[in-house]
Amino acid sequence: MYSIGELQAVIKKTFDSVSFSHQPSELYDPITYTLGLGGKRIRPLFLLTGCDLFCGNISEAEPAIIAIELFHNFTLLHDDIMDQAPLRRGKETVFRKWNTNVAILSGDTMFALAYEYISAIDKTVLPEALSVFTNTARMVCEGQQFDMNFETSDRVSIPAYLEMIRLKTAVLIGCSLKLGAILAKAPVTETEKIYSFGENIGMAFQLQDDLLDTFGDTKKFGKEIGGDISSAKKTFLLLKAYELASDKEKSELDECFSDPSIPSHQKIERVKNVYQSLHIKEFTLSEIEKYFSKALKLFEDINVSKDRKHVLEEFTNTLFVREF
Amino acid sequence: MYSIGELQAVIKKTFDSVSFSHQPSELYDPITYTLGLGGKRIRPLFLLTGCDLFCGNISEAEPAIIAIELFHNFTLLHDDIMDQAPLRRGKETVFRKWNTNVAILSGDTMFALAYEYISAIDKTVLPEALSVFTNTARMVCEGQQFDMNFETSDRVSIPAYLEMIRLKTAVLIGCSLKLGAILAKAPVTETEKIYSFGENIGMAFQLQDDLLDTFGDTKKFGKEIGGDISSAKKTFLLLKAYELASDKEKSELDECFSDPSIPSHQKIERVKNVYQSLHIKEFTLSEIEKYFSKALKLFEDINVSKDRKHVLEEFTNTLFVREF
Repeated sequence: MYSIGELQAVIKKTFDSVSFSHQPSELYDPITYTLGLGGKRIRPLFLLTGCDLFCGNISEAEPAIIAIELFHNFTLLHDDIMDQAPLRRGKETVFRKWNTNVAILSGDTMFALAYEYISAIDKTVLPEALSVFTNTARMVCEGQQFDMNFETSDRVSIPAYLEMIRLKTAVLIGCSLKLGAILAKAPVTETEKIYSFGENIGMAFQLQDDLLDTFGDTKKFGKEIGGDISSAKKTFLLLKAYELASDKEKSELDECFSDPSIPSHQKIERVKNVYQSLHIKEFTLSEIEKYFSKALKLFEDINVSKDRKHVLEEFTNTLFVREF
Repeated sequence: MYSIGELQAVIKKTFDSVSFSHQPSELYDPITYTLGLGGKRIRPLFLLTGCDLFCGNISEAEPAIIAIELFHNFTLLHDDIMDQAPLRRGKETVFRKWNTNVAILSGDTMFALAYEYISAIDKTVLPEALSVFTNTARMVCEGQQFDMNFETSDRVSIPAYLEMIRLKTAVLIGCSLKLGAILAKAPVTETEKIYSFGENIGMAFQLQDDLLDTFGDTKKFGKEIGGDISSAKKTFLLLKAYELASDKEKSELDECFSDPSIPSHQKIERVKNVYQSLHIKEFTLSEIEKYFSKALKLFEDINVSKDRKHVLEEFTNTLFVREF
């Protein structure tokens, strides 16, 4: 049984030892650059904890952790083009540092490389691993498309929003854990439970991200507060607010989002006031709690001795902020 | 043993029966649209002839022919964005008909779908099939990047150009044939020979494409003649011309490609005159012949009775124009 620190050390060693310095450099330099930006490597860590939970061999999971991180970063490269995002992890995005064509093509190469790595796992579990990996890849694309559609859509329902974040974010957490379990040759019943556990954790995690964007502590969160409000992003908070708002509050929200002369900080303040009067923070926390409880219930049901479970439990808990 | 017509019927039936009408429609409609544009389905046909050559079961190859065509079309979707191409097979390209973001993301989805289909083949040959498929995918990306680099590069050598078309075009023909052979459970020695055969055929085919672009018959070729010259594309013809040109001919070429006031038809005429005086057509035909002969030599070496070989031989011959 490995501690979180030990698993993180395995991940660091794995990524330190991997090199993508091939030709042409325009294709491979952005891959080295992107992976070099770091990030929390949450998906590899879920994968390894999933593997270790079922007594799998951690070293055999190394190609899979590279695959999942390459896949995730490929989606970021393409998403950043689509969102015209200037920064990623505080550094210039690939399409800005190089250009759009390079970002498209080196993203494609990362996707191919992800399959190169996933194909290097134990052949006996390859079909099962490929199946969840590829289904997830497709769902993540669907999620991104729904997300883009919502930008120009007048009416987005809360269920549609939840389905979008499930596809765009949550399934990849489920996939990471399931891949770990598959590599450990866990029974299908258990790989399915851990997938659902991950999916629910992913939902809770994304909703928390929405909440932190508006109500988080700038220092702890590491991002500017109110970005979602400034960009009029249809988050759970905003959709819930429109659901509960009186006509007067609806007008206030409409005005904030339609009048470009309102300065950003005023807009954030005014929308936050509406959120506060409607108890949006509490509703969001309760939604997070709903997914978190569902995840815990699934986790309890996993047929593994209690003492093996504490690492994944501990890791999951570190992802959630308890104070707002 | 199937005839070309019979294999084409299998391909038509397979593509007619496949549907990509999922949600969100912005993601899947472009896939249906792209596959609906038709094209000659050359890669599926190579795959099936490769499979039939080694007495494989054609119906088991159906997922693989969808995979190879999805992959090929995914690269076209992304290439068209990078090249800002308005038309593909006489119809609007996806990024023009929808937008760039849709073309990026539905391309990504096609790539994922390609893996979904390739994963559906016989599990005993899956690792081998995945290996050639993924290696090829990466090489095709490398080829496209080299192609883009060459656009802004002053010096492109003929070997570098040949390596670029090998990566961008030829390896996918090799891959198609090899996948067919793998599905037929052909020995590794033979799958490698047929891959090299395909790679050499692919080289000859791409060089012929370069030649037809300048010296082809508009009616037979189906494209406007001289497009490569108008766009100053560094093809084998142009690179060979610069290699052989006298100082006076070099100046003539330089002037044609640097003076934007020269009308396109005059530019084509003047560059063609240089080509003619340098016998570029004959040099290109001889280069095509070199690859074609190498391919035939490899084909002869394939350990299969002569009577099984005539379909693939016949199909290959249909790809080559004998009169210029």
